[in-house]
Amino acid sequence: MRTPVAPIAIIRVEHGATSAADDILVAEEPLEIRLGHGPLHDRRETRLSVTMRTPGHDEDLALGFLFTEGLITAPEQLVRAEQCANVKEEERGNVVRAELRPDVDIDPTRWQRNFYTTSSCGVCGKSSIEAVHAQCTRPMMPWGRVDPAVITALPDRMRGAQTVFRHTGGIHAAALFHRAGELLLLREDIGRHNAVDKVIGAALREQRPMHNTILLVSGRAGFELVQKCVVAGIPLMAAVGAPSSIAVRLARESGLTLIGFLRGERFNIYSGGA
Amino acid sequence: MRTPVAPIAIIRVEHGATSAADDILVAEEPLEIRLGHGPLHDRRETRLSVTMRTPGHDEDLALGFLFTEGLITAPEQLVRAEQCANVKEEERGNVVRAELRPDVDIDPTRWQRNFYTTSSCGVCGKSSIEAVHAQCTRPMMPWGRVDPAVITALPDRMRGAQTVFRHTGGIHAAALFHRAGELLLLREDIGRHNAVDKVIGAALREQRPMHNTILLVSGRAGFELVQKCVVAGIPLMAAVGAPSSIAVRLARESGLTLIGFLRGERFNIYSGGA
Repeated sequence: MRTPVAPIAIIRVEHGATSAADDILVAEEPLEIRLGHGPLHDRRETRLSVTMRTPGHDEDLALGFLFTEGLITAPEQLVRAEQCANVKEEERGNVVRAELRPDVDIDPTRWQRNFYTTSSCGVCGKSSIEAVHAQCTRPMMPWGRVDPAVITALPDRMRGAQTVFRHTGGIHAAALFHRAGELLLLREDIGRHNAVDKVIGAALREQRPMHNTILLVSGRAGFELVQKCVVAGIPLMAAVGAPSSIAVRLARESGLTLIGFLRGERFNIYSGGA
Repeated sequence: MRTPVAPIAIIRVEHGATSAADDILVAEEPLEIRLGHGPLHDRRETRLSVTMRTPGHDEDLALGFLFTEGLITAPEQLVRAEQCANVKEEERGNVVRAELRPDVDIDPTRWQRNFYTTSSCGVCGKSSIEAVHAQCTRPMMPWGRVDPAVITALPDRMRGAQTVFRHTGGIHAAALFHRAGELLLLREDIGRHNAVDKVIGAALREQRPMHNTILLVSGRAGFELVQKCVVAGIPLMAAVGAPSSIAVRLARESGLTLIGFLRGERFNIYSGGA
């Protein structure tokens, strides 16, 4: 049984003073939904989707996903949805098989989604992290000690440059700063992964080195956002909100310094920074 | 040229009193990324992904996406990324073609993502909305007049039941309420679309009728969340944060009552409610 939260030891920074603290993170793990479908004499199994989620109520997630995405039009079309027992130990609890009634025939390839990795990869935290590392071509240059004065100055600089947020109050932002705190690039988007992709795309296009930069995001620090920093070789990522369990694990195993809950004169260091 | 914001007329509710007001929404539109790849004598074009994004800097988004998702390992592998001119009028500005160097050969089918609809569908707000309606099997029963006292009581009830949030401060929630305000189901997840799928999946499993319910989400109201309510036949959706342009359009064309910025004794009505 996987749990929705995970304990962790962190460094808390307040008005420049650091202290060790215990914290609790939201768990984030990949979930694979497999579909059993087709007539009884030709039963097929399709890997339908992999999505990062917080463990718990996974059978409801599968049923809700199949219905709201239009793969089934009534819950009765599903015979059952349950955790797969015949998977590797480390994937147990992360694979749900949804069994369609034999007379419901669909073409699941029309809906397949691969969110973060190729389909040959396993479905556990370890595989997710290995897939990111396999993809890295830029070595990470460790950040070293974090200067609180540089970090706490960033959110105001980002907000001051957010023109769309000022008008709507409803958009995510990602900002790239120089190591010393100077704002280099800012992008706003309804999707925070898009905002990060836009910033990194602009930096690549302008041939800006990223090994001496900070990425600040307006929301939380999930796996996909940390992945994007690691792949781009950005050594410090800061978030206004909370990080997830697997985001912290990826940051620690990649040498990325990860900061969360950056608000006013306070923030938490979840990885690096010593 | 598509714009990142859109003006709208709304109803503002404060301490039970309603007034007409003008507001500005974040624009949300589908973006299709096409990939030109393969050797010169066998040049292929693949529809790589469709994602909902805020228009602007779309070429940077394509470059950043290809790089951070590992399809290319260096920006030099891309010859160019630009808006496609040879698309239908209503799709103009929503299709970027990324041209790989002829010697970079990849198998893009390994990365394809279809976020919200089948690949036979067009890439514009109208097509996105039509795809949702084609998927609907439950007629929407219009909500009618909104009772402010019922609505403003919901967030505290949701927060009171959010056990994971209380411990971590970093998770989304979706809650299903009865028409009169009674909490029926609550789910928390790092991904808000997952939280909504879990709630709707649980309601389907428990054979709960949804035509007389309210869905409350802790974050913003984007297209995919409104889509899920429309497909499930939930007639009123309320969000603590802002809705997007296409979320409001989908709500209005579906007869769904949509409320945003629900905080304390205030909220905005973006669709229905009269």
